[in-house]
Amino acid sequence: MTTIVQKYGGTSIGTIDNIKSVAKRIIKRKKQGNNVVVVVSAMGKSTDNLINMAKEVTKEPCKRELDMLVSTGEQVTISLLSMTLKEMGYDSISLTGFQAGIVTNDIHTKAKISDIDIKKVNNYLNDGKIVVVAGFQGINNKGDITTLGRGGSDTTAVALAAKLNSSCEIYTDVDGVYSVDPRQYPNSKKLDYICYEEMLEMASLGANIMESRAVEIGQKYCVPIYVALSTSEKKGTYIKEFDNTMEEKVITGLTVSDDDLMVTINNIPYDNKNISLIFQKLAENSVNIDMISQTAPTNGYINVSFTAPEDSINLIKRLTESFKEKFKDINTEIQKDITKISVVGLGMRDVPGVAAKIFKIFSENNIEFKLVTTSEIRISYAINTEGKCSAVKLISEEFNL
Amino acid sequence: MTTIVQKYGGTSIGTIDNIKSVAKRIIKRKKQGNNVVVVVSAMGKSTDNLINMAKEVTKEPCKRELDMLVSTGEQVTISLLSMTLKEMGYDSISLTGFQAGIVTNDIHTKAKISDIDIKKVNNYLNDGKIVVVAGFQGINNKGDITTLGRGGSDTTAVALAAKLNSSCEIYTDVDGVYSVDPRQYPNSKKLDYICYEEMLEMASLGANIMESRAVEIGQKYCVPIYVALSTSEKKGTYIKEFDNTMEEKVITGLTVSDDDLMVTINNIPYDNKNISLIFQKLAENSVNIDMISQTAPTNGYINVSFTAPEDSINLIKRLTESFKEKFKDINTEIQKDITKISVVGLGMRDVPGVAAKIFKIFSENNIEFKLVTTSEIRISYAINTEGKCSAVKLISEEFNL
Repeated sequence: MTTIVQKYGGTSIGTIDNIKSVAKRIIKRKKQGNNVVVVVSAMGKSTDNLINMAKEVTKEPCKRELDMLVSTGEQVTISLLSMTLKEMGYDSISLTGFQAGIVTNDIHTKAKISDIDIKKVNNYLNDGKIVVVAGFQGINNKGDITTLGRGGSDTTAVALAAKLNSSCEIYTDVDGVYSVDPRQYPNSKKLDYICYEEMLEMASLGANIMESRAVEIGQKYCVPIYVALSTSEKKGTYIKEFDNTMEEKVITGLTVSDDDLMVTINNIPYDNKNISLIFQKLAENSVNIDMISQTAPTNGYINVSFTAPEDSINLIKRLTESFKEKFKDINTEIQKDITKISVVGLGMRDVPGVAAKIFKIFSENNIEFKLVTTSEIRISYAINTEGKCSAVKLISEEFNL
Repeated sequence: MTTIVQKYGGTSIGTIDNIKSVAKRIIKRKKQGNNVVVVVSAMGKSTDNLINMAKEVTKEPCKRELDMLVSTGEQVTISLLSMTLKEMGYDSISLTGFQAGIVTNDIHTKAKISDIDIKKVNNYLNDGKIVVVAGFQGINNKGDITTLGRGGSDTTAVALAAKLNSSCEIYTDVDGVYSVDPRQYPNSKKLDYICYEEMLEMASLGANIMESRAVEIGQKYCVPIYVALSTSEKKGTYIKEFDNTMEEKVITGLTVSDDDLMVTINNIPYDNKNISLIFQKLAENSVNIDMISQTAPTNGYINVSFTAPEDSINLIKRLTESFKEKFKDINTEIQKDITKISVVGLGMRDVPGVAAKIFKIFSENNIEFKLVTTSEIRISYAINTEGKCSAVKLISEEFNL
């Protein structure tokens, strides 16, 4: 008998009626002769509500206690879903993270799954039950409840599928993976397939469909993942290893991020130690640097630019100010209206000239770009935000996205 | 260092502000140099809200899943209370039922504690932490979450105190145990002390202060229990073994219950087998019979009266109807306006004539009583409800309650 793991996110199970609809979808797969494991998140906004209660108590809740608190959200959903399945005549059992054998490390609110003892889940599947597992949560070696952080239920689902040698279906509020976020480019095409590497580049670049860690686990254990709408039968997107059945494209997707700012530090005395010192200080203060570029030295000085998350602006201002104690001549510019556009595609490895084509688009259309970085399957450009719309449109058209 | 277990019920922790007040009370005891374990219920009406969600799904929720659902209520409280204690500068840790080692039998929604592995609680106490434990819940040998049923948090608290050889403080919305429910007799006196046996008779007779099981465990393991208001420092009531420091009273308390009806079956052919058959049928259908009286046989027939919970009226009607198949001559009367008044007191064992005094009160004041039953420390009377007020007043005055 084939086992499948299905995951339903918070918006798919926001109300009792939603839960009933989801139960029908689950039963459909069960009736087809599958063993079904279902992973669910907390209902709708319930996690936010719990966090707000904690914030009434204290600005910075103890993370262990916060995990204790928010993990109740999924526990509510699993019990209600399991009741619903039983009410519809299908034997079912709900399991919290710890009951499902999900063991994590100690990092509360951002724990990583270290192992899954799959025995209990398997026993219940063998009894013919639909097994409903609380996503997002586990237990550490001390017996404390942990949560996996943002997108954690995806991770739970893919990790369970890996342990069960099964496929994983992620049902959510988007109908699949698009080459470009349709809010940025309405003509963008839905992908039938995307390979893990491409999806990882897309996910880490802000395509809000699946958390990177879930895709990483999928890639590591070769779990076929299917992403689709929870509310219709419309065909979604398969995330899997690249194979010959997949049409090879030079570029699979384009992502857009407006959440960065660009920092330029001018007139740093040219010495590699100085650059190292600056980035070390930024790292020590957990400033998450993304793109970096550095000019060639002129008159013994160099300029350095980098992008960083917008919300670290005050921290960066404080740090660059402190650099003046050591480097009197430096001055710092911070530009907030920066957009990062990235193109991703396994095909880039074999087809040269992608960067050149995009540079040509930028120059022909007066789109000013500030920084560029490349990896094997990705090129990212930081451009002035005012050029965003035309850049997205022109690149999407050029590469048929 | 002395260890104390405190329990706070749902109304005492219905809001974040309530939780903050409770935290201050806990800290006060901690500052006095005690190890403190705190047992809490779910906040306010949250258990009811969870049950209502289940009822939206199904009329008869699976009890295992219902336990999974409602146990989240206490988990929310323990985490919020622990955060609050930490915010106030006191190290604290919250533990769910299973984390606190509370093992129960398999009877979901009405589980009984079979053992407590106290190791974890003791370790945290030795670390100087205030240990906050979820009341009302445990785990069975299969690893399923169970709940203890009505008043379960009291049971958790007293059982933990038993294991820790400590005393137990129950903070609630009443300021102690009264000789008579003040709603029934406003002049009634609050008791400084009551012994376990008397409290058990009082609890099982409807004095809604503590669940009987909690008192039973207290008695079995000699746990001194203190019941008091959660919102003031007003002196409450100690529940403990009878000793010489306690003033001996003939009658300690009087309880009133309006939740019963009286059933009289007339003209049953006189044969012990017939009576046995009737009560057996009632028992098989889980009719909870309380007081029973039987007349002497007249002309080969006898009459039997008994009291039973009001909500079993339809079941009783159906059963007594079915008795007619076998006993053609019987007729059944059901009286709903029945009140059960009980007087309880350890002193009754040594002082005769209590029943006589009360019979005298009834006869002098035209209070019609229907049934009477006695135990070693209790006498119960079923009277017409119209006589309730004067009966309560007259008995309370007679015995200085």
